[in-house]
Amino acid sequence: MKQTSILKYALALLPLLGSLYAIADAPKPEQVIKWRQSTFQTVAWETGRIKASLDGQFNKDEVSKAAAAISAIANSGLSGLFAPGSDTGKGFHDTSISADAFSNTPHLAELAGNFAKEAAELNRIAAAGDQSGIKDQFGRLTKTCKACHDDFKRKD
Amino acid sequence: MKQTSILKYALALLPLLGSLYAIADAPKPEQVIKWRQSTFQTVAWETGRIKASLDGQFNKDEVSKAAAAISAIANSGLSGLFAPGSDTGKGFHDTSISADAFSNTPHLAELAGNFAKEAAELNRIAAAGDQSGIKDQFGRLTKTCKACHDDFKRKD
Repeated sequence: MKQTSILKYALALLPLLGSLYAIADAPKPEQVIKWRQSTFQTVAWETGRIKASLDGQFNKDEVSKAAAAISAIANSGLSGLFAPGSDTGKGFHDTSISADAFSNTPHLAELAGNFAKEAAELNRIAAAGDQSGIKDQFGRLTKTCKACHDDFKRKD
Repeated sequence: MKQTSILKYALALLPLLGSLYAIADAPKPEQVIKWRQSTFQTVAWETGRIKASLDGQFNKDEVSKAAAAISAIANSGLSGLFAPGSDTGKGFHDTSISADAFSNTPHLAELAGNFAKEAAELNRIAAAGDQSGIKDQFGRLTKTCKACHDDFKRKD
């Protein structure tokens, strides 16, 4: 075999080596599940702060900071939290994600997009500080949470 | 006892009732610990995305979105994650927080302030997209993580 042929074969193998490296380097499913559970638990914490403010003593600063965090998380690109292989297993606890989240990815992406959109809108409204507007938009945001839980969270 | 006296006593008790209500309404320590563990795990996820981009194929969009999320979380007011009573106990796992975090709160607030400041600066620099500047600022940010772990995370 000529040296040029060897070089050709080696070059042809490069993308494969790259893929193997990416697989070897990819986080383990249990780590992905832990991040997924943590991220949505963080969203739940920030959401709870807004709800407490709307139900009790309204605190504009508290609400706008929490809304900014939810929006930045929702818009940070969450697809990595649904990496292949993270459909079953244990993170901080057994995942309750439905298999549909991995088979019907266009619908998952659609609902994640709605979540990101309504979170960004709440962030915009919260910065202005109108309590009634915040309450309405908070309702729209939590509907996107529920939609995803309804379609992609196992009920068992 | 005259009616006016009874009213006086009742009015005097109102702030106490308010405090009792706040205590009853406050999230349980195990919930606070769960939120604390989740929030910093989320920061770890977003930080890992930036590190992967700096160590491998640089992706400006990935980095700027992750930096925005870290900054919004760091600046969302984290004191609620260190509520009294959450010094010991189990969230997703036993807390590894040191008792010093609850006795030396000015130092905790100082380190949390440094974290918030450097995260906001990384967000600013990441939006511009200069890889070398991002790398330097990312180093400054992770130093603030380490400073807090050094001083407020138990080593046992």
